[in-house]
Amino acid sequence: MTNAIYTYEKEFILESGKNLSNVDIAYTTFGNLNKSKNNVVWVFHALTANQNPLEWWPGLFGENDFFNTQDYFIVCANVLGGCYGSTGPSTTKDKDNHLGDFPLLTIRDIVRGHQMLQKYLGINSIKIAIGGSFGGYQALEFAYGNSSLENLIIIAAGAIETPWNIAIHEAQRLAMEADGKFNREKDEFIKGLIAARGIGLLTYRTPAAFVKTQPRLENQIDEFAAASYIKYQGEKLQKRFSPWTYYKLTQTLDTHDIGRNRDGCDAALKQISARTLAIGITEDALAKADEVHRMASKIPNALYKEISSTYGHDGFLLETKQITQIIKQFIN
Amino acid sequence: MTNAIYTYEKEFILESGKNLSNVDIAYTTFGNLNKSKNNVVWVFHALTANQNPLEWWPGLFGENDFFNTQDYFIVCANVLGGCYGSTGPSTTKDKDNHLGDFPLLTIRDIVRGHQMLQKYLGINSIKIAIGGSFGGYQALEFAYGNSSLENLIIIAAGAIETPWNIAIHEAQRLAMEADGKFNREKDEFIKGLIAARGIGLLTYRTPAAFVKTQPRLENQIDEFAAASYIKYQGEKLQKRFSPWTYYKLTQTLDTHDIGRNRDGCDAALKQISARTLAIGITEDALAKADEVHRMASKIPNALYKEISSTYGHDGFLLETKQITQIIKQFIN
Repeated sequence: MTNAIYTYEKEFILESGKNLSNVDIAYTTFGNLNKSKNNVVWVFHALTANQNPLEWWPGLFGENDFFNTQDYFIVCANVLGGCYGSTGPSTTKDKDNHLGDFPLLTIRDIVRGHQMLQKYLGINSIKIAIGGSFGGYQALEFAYGNSSLENLIIIAAGAIETPWNIAIHEAQRLAMEADGKFNREKDEFIKGLIAARGIGLLTYRTPAAFVKTQPRLENQIDEFAAASYIKYQGEKLQKRFSPWTYYKLTQTLDTHDIGRNRDGCDAALKQISARTLAIGITEDALAKADEVHRMASKIPNALYKEISSTYGHDGFLLETKQITQIIKQFIN
Repeated sequence: MTNAIYTYEKEFILESGKNLSNVDIAYTTFGNLNKSKNNVVWVFHALTANQNPLEWWPGLFGENDFFNTQDYFIVCANVLGGCYGSTGPSTTKDKDNHLGDFPLLTIRDIVRGHQMLQKYLGINSIKIAIGGSFGGYQALEFAYGNSSLENLIIIAAGAIETPWNIAIHEAQRLAMEADGKFNREKDEFIKGLIAARGIGLLTYRTPAAFVKTQPRLENQIDEFAAASYIKYQGEKLQKRFSPWTYYKLTQTLDTHDIGRNRDGCDAALKQISARTLAIGITEDALAKADEVHRMASKIPNALYKEISSTYGHDGFLLETKQITQIIKQFIN
C-alpha cells in the first residue's frame, strides 16, 4: 500500500470559471502494475469515504475479495474538495478559498483531478473504473469520451441528480445553516452536521431496515432505539468529517448531470465506449433503480442488473456478495 | 361558525403521570346540531394545522363539499399541545410547564382533551370521526372502546408509529437542536424549524412530485427550484407555527401505539366498534399503504380502500375528489 499526495502546480480552472492553486490530490495504491500494464482498477469513493477502499468496501476490496492486491493494481484518490488530504474547504491553505469561501466544485472538476493523477502516475489504460453513489457519478464522468477505459461499473447511481435528491440536500444544508456555529470562517457547526447526517441516513436506508434493526419496545413512549441510532450515526461522522466539506460536497452532488452542455443525457451517454455494468437496487430511495436502468439503456455497450437489499441505497456497500457474483460474470 | 375556548378547571393528569392545570381546548363548530342529534362530524387535524378544516381541507370540507354546514354539525379542536389556542408549550401560562419544559403528551392525552370537550358540548353521539395522518392517529384512539361513535374514517395513518417515522422525527429534532437559538426558555429556533419542516416535506411528497413540480433546468449547476421550494415551505411555516410546539408534537407522534398496555395492536383494534373506512395511499412514504391495510384488517367492521397520488402522503389533503368518491359510497 502506498499513500501519497500529488500536487498540481499550475492553476486549476474550475467549471465555474474560478481558480484553485497548488491543488493536492491524496491517493492510495494497492498491489502492483503487471508487465502488460492491464490490471489497473480505479475506484471512486462515496460522499464521506476516503482513499482506502479496503477500509470502507470490505467484501469487494480485500485480500480474499474479487478486487485483491494479487490480481489488481488498485488506485483510489480522495476527491478534490474532500477532507482526507486532497485540497478542499477544510484543508486548503489558500485564505481566499477557505471553508465557506471554497468555490463550487462540479463532479467534472473532481474527475479532472483524478485524470491529472492518472497522467502523473503514467497509467495509459484502465481495466476497470468502479464506483457507487457519488463514486458512481465520478466513474460515469470519468468514462465519458474516455477510450483508455476498458470496463465501467456503476452501482446505485444515475445520469443526473434529480430534483428529489436536490431537495434532500437542501434540507441537509438548512439543518447545517441553522447551527449557531455556522460561520464562513469556522468549521465548527458540528450539531448541524449531525442533523444533516441523520437526514442522509434516512435516505440511505429503508423503512423495513429500521423496523428490523431498531424495533420499538412494547409499551414504550420515548427513548426509542431508532432515534438513538440516527443520533449515534451523526455523532460518529462528526468525529471524522469536516462540516464545511460535507456542506460543499452536497452542492457538488447537485451539479451531477452527464448531459450538461453535451446536448443532454442521452447524447452524452452515447459517448461512453467502455463495456459497462450498471447495478440498481430495487429498494433504493435515493438512486431509483429505474433511473439506473434508464442510464444503462442509453450507454452503447451496457448491461443492467438489479439486486434487492433491505438496506436500500446502502446496499451498494453492504450487499458485496450479490455484487461480487454479478461482477464475476461481467469481468473475465 | 363558532370559535371558542373550553377550559377544564381540574387537574389534567397525563399518561406520563405529570399534571397540567387549567387546560384550554380551542375549538370551532360549523353548522347546527339537527333535531335527531345525529349529524355530528368530528374532525381531527394534522401536525401543523388548526381547528378550521374549511381552511386546510377544502374539497372535502366546504359549502359545496361532502362535509358541508347544511348537512353536518362539524366540530374541530386544536390539539392539546398545539399553538392555535389550546394549552401547549407556547401558550401555557404555567411557568413550570413552559416551552422546553412542557411535558410529553401522548396521542391518548390529546384525545382525552377532545373527549372532555365532547362532554362539555353535550354531544352524546357522533356520526363520523375523521382524520388523516396525525389526525388519523387521534381518530383511531378516539374510536377505541367508544360506543358513541357510529363511523370512523382514517386516511394515511396506521395503528402504531414505526421506527422509520421515529427516525425521521429524530432527524427533525436534531436539526432544531442544532439551532443556536435552541433554548428551553425561548421559542426562537426558527432556522431549526425551517430545516425540520424541510425534512418533513420530503416525507410528505414523493420523488416523482419533485421531478414534476420542481424540475431542474438545462445546464444548471446551482440555485435549483427544488432547493428553493424546500426553503420556501419552511419559511412559510415558521410565520405561523411555534418551534417548541413542533418539536414537542414530533415526540407525541412517536408515542402513537393503539396497542400500548392493551395487549398489543391486534387486541386493541378489536375494541373498535364503529363502522370503519381506512384509506391508504399507494405512494405514501410515511404511512405505508400496507400498514393502513393491516390496521383495517384487524378492525371488526372495516373497509380498506387505496388511492394513488403523485403527492404521496400529502395526497390525504390534496386528493379530495378521490377521497370524496370513496366516502360517498361509505356513508349513506
